[in-house]
Formats: sequence, C-alpha cells, structure tokens
Amino acid sequence: MEYTYRQILKWGDKREGKIDPLTIKIIKEKFDLKDSDFETKYLSGLQLVRLEKRSSLKPEQLDFFKSTAGNENVQSDDFSRAKYSCGKFYAELLDLRLNLVPDPPDAVVSPKCYDELLKIVEYCNQERIPVIPVGGQSSVTGALKAPLGGIALDLTKHLNKIEKINTENKTVTVQAGIYGPLLEEELIRHGFTCGHFPQSFEHSTVGGWIAAKGAGVASTGYGKIEDMVVALKVVTPAGVIETKEYPRTAQGWDIFRLFIGSEGTLGIITEATLNIHNYRPKNTGYASFIFKSFEQAVAAMQKIIQSEYGKPHLFRISDPEETDIAFKTNGFDNSFSDKLLKGFGYLPGKRSLIFIAVEGDKDFTKFVLNKIKKTVRKGEAMYIGKSPVKKWLDQRYSSAYMRDPLMDLGIMSDTLETVVTWEKLLKVWAAARTYVNKRPKTILMIHISHVYESGANLYFTFLSPMEKGNEKNDFAAFHKGLVDTIQENGGSLSHHHGVGRVLAPWMEGHLGKQSMSVLGAVKKHFDPNNIMNPGGTLGLQ
Amino acid sequence: MEYTYRQILKWGDKREGKIDPLTIKIIKEKFDLKDSDFETKYLSGLQLVRLEKRSSLKPEQLDFFKSTAGNENVQSDDFSRAKYSCGKFYAELLDLRLNLVPDPPDAVVSPKCYDELLKIVEYCNQERIPVIPVGGQSSVTGALKAPLGGIALDLTKHLNKIEKINTENKTVTVQAGIYGPLLEEELIRHGFTCGHFPQSFEHSTVGGWIAAKGAGVASTGYGKIEDMVVALKVVTPAGVIETKEYPRTAQGWDIFRLFIGSEGTLGIITEATLNIHNYRPKNTGYASFIFKSFEQAVAAMQKIIQSEYGKPHLFRISDPEETDIAFKTNGFDNSFSDKLLKGFGYLPGKRSLIFIAVEGDKDFTKFVLNKIKKTVRKGEAMYIGKSPVKKWLDQRYSSAYMRDPLMDLGIMSDTLETVVTWEKLLKVWAAARTYVNKRPKTILMIHISHVYESGANLYFTFLSPMEKGNEKNDFAAFHKGLVDTIQENGGSLSHHHGVGRVLAPWMEGHLGKQSMSVLGAVKKHFDPNNIMNPGGTLGLQ
Repeated sequence: MEYTYRQILKWGDKREGKIDPLTIKIIKEKFDLKDSDFETKYLSGLQLVRLEKRSSLKPEQLDFFKSTAGNENVQSDDFSRAKYSCGKFYAELLDLRLNLVPDPPDAVVSPKCYDELLKIVEYCNQERIPVIPVGGQSSVTGALKAPLGGIALDLTKHLNKIEKINTENKTVTVQAGIYGPLLEEELIRHGFTCGHFPQSFEHSTVGGWIAAKGAGVASTGYGKIEDMVVALKVVTPAGVIETKEYPRTAQGWDIFRLFIGSEGTLGIITEATLNIHNYRPKNTGYASFIFKSFEQAVAAMQKIIQSEYGKPHLFRISDPEETDIAFKTNGFDNSFSDKLLKGFGYLPGKRSLIFIAVEGDKDFTKFVLNKIKKTVRKGEAMYIGKSPVKKWLDQRYSSAYMRDPLMDLGIMSDTLETVVTWEKLLKVWAAARTYVNKRPKTILMIHISHVYESGANLYFTFLSPMEKGNEKNDFAAFHKGLVDTIQENGGSLSHHHGVGRVLAPWMEGHLGKQSMSVLGAVKKHFDPNNIMNPGGTLGLQ
Repeated sequence: MEYTYRQILKWGDKREGKIDPLTIKIIKEKFDLKDSDFETKYLSGLQLVRLEKRSSLKPEQLDFFKSTAGNENVQSDDFSRAKYSCGKFYAELLDLRLNLVPDPPDAVVSPKCYDELLKIVEYCNQERIPVIPVGGQSSVTGALKAPLGGIALDLTKHLNKIEKINTENKTVTVQAGIYGPLLEEELIRHGFTCGHFPQSFEHSTVGGWIAAKGAGVASTGYGKIEDMVVALKVVTPAGVIETKEYPRTAQGWDIFRLFIGSEGTLGIITEATLNIHNYRPKNTGYASFIFKSFEQAVAAMQKIIQSEYGKPHLFRISDPEETDIAFKTNGFDNSFSDKLLKGFGYLPGKRSLIFIAVEGDKDFTKFVLNKIKKTVRKGEAMYIGKSPVKKWLDQRYSSAYMRDPLMDLGIMSDTLETVVTWEKLLKVWAAARTYVNKRPKTILMIHISHVYESGANLYFTFLSPMEKGNEKNDFAAFHKGLVDTIQENGGSLSHHHGVGRVLAPWMEGHLGKQSMSVLGAVKKHFDPNNIMNPGGTLGLQ
C-alpha cells in the first residue's frame, strides 16, 4: 500500500480521474497547452507522507483513546494524521502536492459506539484536547484542519447505521457517520429516497451534510438539508442535546437548528432524523431548454418558480460560457443541429441551457412539465428534449474526478458559490464574470442550481493555469478578489458549502459584529473550553 | 367612554359577541341551562377597573418615557395598565371578570419611531426596567403579564407601516406592529397575499406572529410563520441584530431563527421581511368530504399529504363530536340530506368532515383537487361539494366572538393544541377525549388543521360549566390534566400558540434540562439584566 500525498488528495481516493478527449481539446486551446504538458504530472504528490509536526498528545492520553475505542480504532501515523486534516478545497490539494500538511490532528479516533464517543468527548473536555468531528472529508472550506492539534473524531467507521425507517411518519433516523450511497440504497429498498444529492454524495455523510448546511441537486423541490432535518442528537462538551421528532412546534425557538451549519464548533451530531420521500424514478419528468440569452433564461426561471403550480426538483441554468463548454464536451458543437440552432438565433456566447427534472406522483410530474413548457415563451427558447438533462445527470458525479488530472496539468480548478435575491442576481453574475475575465486564460462556468421564490444561488467553477512557483499566493489573491466581488454586489457568503476556515475572515463583515457575538456566546455555552473544532472555523476565535 | 374590565376582556373589543340560536340550543341541552340563565351575565366584568398595585416607576423614569415618546404616547392610568397586561387566555378573562389584574405593567409606552424605541430599550436596560413587547394582545399563554412591573412597549400605535413590497423577490418588509388586515389589504392592492391567517388575524400583528411562532389556516400550503420569515431586525439590550434577505444560506446556523418563538424574552422584533404569494382568489379550489369515521379521515389525510402531487393550503378534519356540532349549528342535523347520509352509514358520533382549499395557479388547484378526489376512497367517504368549506371560511373569525357570551353564561371555554407524528396521532386524540369526557357536562371539539408529511396538529376546544365559586382552581386543575395527558402520549407542548407563562411549568420536562439551559444561555447573552419579558415566560427564570 502506498502512503503518498496523492492518495489523500484524490477525489474519492479509489481511482485516478481522467479528462475526456473533448475537454482536453478545450483546455489545450484555451490554455495553450502542448502535448508535452501531458507527459508528466505537475506537483504529482507521489512522495511519501512525512509530517514534521509531532503529536502533542501525552502517552497516557493516547492510551486512554486506545483503551476506550480499541487499538485498531486509534491511528497516529503520519499518513492518517495528514489524511484526516484535509478536505477537498483547492488550496488543501495544492498543499498536499507541495508536500505540506500544515494542520494535522495528533490522532484519529473512531469510536465503536455512542457511549465511547460520549466518554471521549468528556475526556477531551477535561484534558482540553481539541476534537474535530470528521465525516466524508469532502469539505471545501478547510473545516477539517487541526491548527491546535487534538483528535480527528471519525464517525464513518462505526457510527454509520440506519436506526429506523419510519414508513408511517416518512422519516429516517440514522447515525450521523453514514455515507449517502448506503443511506440511499437502504431507503430505496423500502420505497423511499432521501432526496439529498450533493455533488459530494458518494463521499459525504449525513452528519457532514447537516454540519455544513448542504444542498443537493434536487433542492428546489426537496429543500436544503435544513428543510429535511426533523430532530437531532448532539454530544457537546456541555452535555447531550436530544430533540424530539415533531414536524413543527411553538415551544420557544428551535434548538436543533443551532447545529445545522455549526461545522463542528458546538458538538458532534451523532444522530439525525430526516424527512424522506417516495422513490418513484419512473415518474420523474425531464425537460431541457435552450434559451437565446442568460437573461431570458433567468427571467423564465423566476417566472416558473413564482407561478405557484408546483416546483421542479432539479432546476438548473448554465450560463453562456458553461453552455458553450457543455456543447463542446458533448460533441454537439458545430453539429448539424447546432448549425440549425445558430440559424434560429441561438448563438454561442449568448445561449443558455435550462435543465429540469420533476419528481413525485406521475400525474404531478406531467402536469408541472406541461405548465413549464407553456410558461417558456416561443421565440426566446426551444425545447430540446429529455436526453440532455438525463445525460447530464448520468455523468454529474464524474466531473469532480477531473480536478486531479487538471491539477496534474498545472491548472488551478476551484468553485465558489453564493445565494442572492432575484433583484441582484444578474448584477452578481456580471460582476463575477468581469472580475474573473480580467485574469488572462480563464474558464469560468457559472450555473444556477438551487431556486427559491425570492432568489437563487450562483455557482462558479473556474479553471486557469497556475502561476508556476507562486501557486499558493496566486490562488489566494484570485480567490479573495472573487469573494470580495460577490460580497460587494450583495451575494451571501455561502449557500451550501459553508464557511469553515476559508471564508471565516469575511464572517464579521458579512454578518455584523452583533451577530458574530451571538455565534460566540452560543459557542461558549456548549464548548466553554473551546475544544470543538477550534482555531477559526466560522470566524470564531 | 367606559373603563370596565369587560372592555378589556372582549374579543376584539368593538362589539358584544352573540351566540347563534342553534348553538344556544346545543348548550342548553348539554349543560341543562334554563331560560333564566340567559337573563343576567355571570361575572360580567362591568365594574370600573381599579388597580391595587401602584406603579413602581420613579417620576424621573416616567418623565424620560414622556420626553422620549411624547406625553400622548405614555399611559399610566389603571385601565391602560390593566389592558396591556392581558391576552385572551381563559384564565386571564376569568381574572378580569373577577376584577383581578395580578400583573400589570407600570406604564404603556408607544414609541413613534425606531430611534425612540432604541433609546427606550437602552434606558430600560440601564435602569433595569422590564420591557414587555406588545402587539395585538391575542396571546393565549399569559405572555403579556408583567409580574415584575416595567413597561408594556406597544408597537401597534406607530410602528405599523409597510416599508417595502418587493415584487421582484416576492417579499414584503414591514414594521412589526402592523395588524394582519392592514398588511393584507395593502398586499392585495399589489396582487399579493401574505398567506398567514391565524384565528386571531383581525387582532394580531406580524411581530406577534413571529414572536409566538404562529400558524394560519392555510399553513399546510404556505407553512407556519417560521417558513415565511426571510429576515428580521431585532432590538435587544445587547444591541441590534439585523439579518440579510437571502432565501437560504450556509454561513453558520441561522441567527434570525432565535427570535422566531422567542416570545419577547430576547428583544423586540421591530422589522420583518416575509415571503408573499400571488393573490388569485378566483383560482382557489374548494372541496368538502364526509368520512364514515375519524380514523378513515385521518388515514386519507395522511395519504393525501404523503402522495407528493401538490398540497392543499387549507386542510382540516373535524372529529366526530366537532362534526356533529357543525351539523347542528348549521341546521343540517336531521335534514333530509342528513337522513340520507345516515342511511348510507355516515352516522353521528362517528362521521368526520374534511375541508380543503387549494390556492395558486388555476390549473394547479384543479389538478390537486382532482387528485384528492381520486385518493379518497369510495365507500368510506362522500364528496359533499364546495359550499360547506366556503361557508366555514366565511364565518371562521366569528367563533372567537362567542366566547364572551358563553362565559356570561358561566361556561368555561378554552382551547389547547399540540402537534404529533402520524404514528401517535390517534393515541393522543383518544387519550385527550378520554380525559375530557371524565368531566361531566363537557363539549370537546377536536380538529386537525396544520398538516405535514410526518404528522399533524390536534386542536382542542372545550366547553363546560364553570364550578361556581371555584372557577379558577377548577379550570387550572382541568387544564393541567389535559396538558399532562397530551404530554404523556407524545404530543408537543404547542404547535402554534406558544408557551408563555401558562405552559412554562412543562418546558423543562418536555425539552430536557440541557435544552432549557441553552435557552437560558442565549437569553443571558441578549438580555444580561433580564429586562425582556421577565418572570417566567418560556420557563426562563
């Protein structure tokens, strides 16, 4: 078994990702790459992991963890410590390629059961040992770093069971360390689906979804994770919070909601009850449209979501640059049909794709699709069938695997996202475009994928050649400028990635001092000794 | 102008309520009333209000309020102090009829603008003067009592404007003291509706809806108030919290949600932004059904809400006793049609009404109604047209006005409510029935009116002759037993009335010590000197 940095940085860690030939063609053209660039891996990360930072745990502390969870459930080797301190934020991957692991935990502990976890948290609180709860490690916000050392508390190894599928209440109760695919598989067996499919679905857990306040591809219909949670059990240094399963209440403000978006700073979510939905994939209705312009696509999306005739579950616009790239990577560019489209005024650099899927009852999905088709105005858009959206859904998890080979080519590749009200959406979109386009040789794909009556998100995927030898600073400056641009134009700090340590510096400016002090006060109540994911997460000190 | 206790206790305070003749017939029979009982008013409350408790404000404090808000906006007479300390909880009304005002504030202050309010809160915090925010005074939880004195801070007199109707984002921003009807009138003028119609609609404010976490008659479609709030501005002793208008975010847990259900204990909600909906009453689809049994009606409701073909906005079941009373008060009992119904097996004591209204797009309302009609199984239910639900909607605000004349007859009349998952719903319903029926001469009407995929509320309206001379203790013991029964069988403490001081004694037992200490910690952060609605609200000390 190899214990290299590359093993840690790979998306999903099982296979080497590949870039498809049509994408290669695009980036070769756009970034002036030569064939020789494809021969070697830039900053390959193939070196063996060696940490400089020694564990600061005392021998008796390590012994406590081993005697509590069992030797086989406590790792303190360099590779494990490095691996558990990293998510999938671009700067983290870059660090790994540069053989840097700035903030490893002292050990990784995987309790076998709830009682062990409880003991461990109590002990860590006594001993002032930091605890970083770890799920699937798909964080893109630096939320897993352990700048003050401590233990990475891994919930995925043992605390990963379904406790109850309640067919009467349409809810599922799970241990928080369960991965998306296992949950979904078991639900499907009972005729249900969780309806939560983030891009990280394969490599993320229910606890992570809740802690980071995630959203999945069907969120326009099913909501974000905060719309699905019914009850939580959370182990905090100040005690265990266990809330009851009610659809809604009026018994003070909702305590369980404090933990949705808490990013490990308050306690460890050990158990969650979620709403579930009927699994009837044959009923799903699909539709794809091409619009003459992004502005027209956005206006249609807004009209559809505000019409009150039922909502699509998946609802997505690709902006012109993303649309053009989709045409190219699908080999559609310059095909006969493409030429026809151009003839009708659907021009590259202008046209925008809309993808739709409606789930639920069979008649309902038909009904909503028909209404949407009638809402879309002839002359500004064309219905282009079911297959484009279905094809996109089939390959949607694969795009994340392309990032590693892109970085192998020396290409920076990251994402940012925000949410904004309708009245400011085009402004934020245009400002972000202007900002990114100032950098030479960039690809910027923007899409909208989570839609509400009062606004929608904007999701930015950008590619650009790294500034060789100055990769870290170059990225940091570029990234900061984009976050600033979004902020200045009225976007939120995040819609569903979370804050972590990456966006922490913006928190006070964005929320205001008063709100930051509320976060601090709640933190202090649950975690008076500051052991829970300490060192900057959420902008907390 | 009269300044009597009756003036305070009357629902809506403008007119004397009347009991319709058919209801009189029922209560005469059920409670063995004689004609002579109708000649005088029992505990009429017609005496002039006189308070024993003197104001504890120092003259310079009163002067401060007067110089800040203006003489005309500060009242310290007995009548005003009494009036502003009362909501519409039965025990409060009984107190008024007994000429008791146990917990009046020292003065009523109605700031003319936000800046005055801010100054007043700062001053009260310095001087340790309790502040009780007051909206429409329709509280049924004793939330307006001022056991420690202080000022009733009235938002309805001046802080009652619409600030912006944002047609782009489909949101409205209002000052919190605005009453339901004024908000709705203005929205309708712009083609929108707020979609929030609690029973107290005529006499409650947006701030009160949010502080008490209310729900309206169309909540199954539009959600509770917590599903409508997008952003809040709140003045707390620790500073002003102002959140931004985003449909959803992932920037830590949602701070504005702390104030939804805070019942005045953390600060004063001064401004709120809410989602609004298209106002298209001509599109609304109505349907009424009669089921052979409550159990069958509940099963159908559960099936409909879990079918994922679009939800009704109004969705209501009357249990058999409520159904029978509805038949009688509508003169339908023993009509030709009623005899036919009985012939088909829809028997008194068993049969249950379901009322439905679907709002939104015209095709959507038709579609959903058709689906519902197909879901309801022939043989167990009969469609009985649109008019029963329309008729019920037309008179729905009037029933609250009947409580005063009922109390004039010496009849105890109050409501309680809970929410429960589907698997426990019939159990809670049956246990509450058993408990209430142990008391001789009771009418207990139970309905379900807020429906979710995982459960629904239960709403209890009970009538019973007062135990003359022992009215207060009799009610307190009866009420306690019913709350206990609901709790023991798995119901929540409240679905939409809130907790106030009435349900406060159950809070710790229901939420647990850990959760209670969280409420306390947040309270301490915002209100370190315990001036915000102090003295037991929400079970806080």
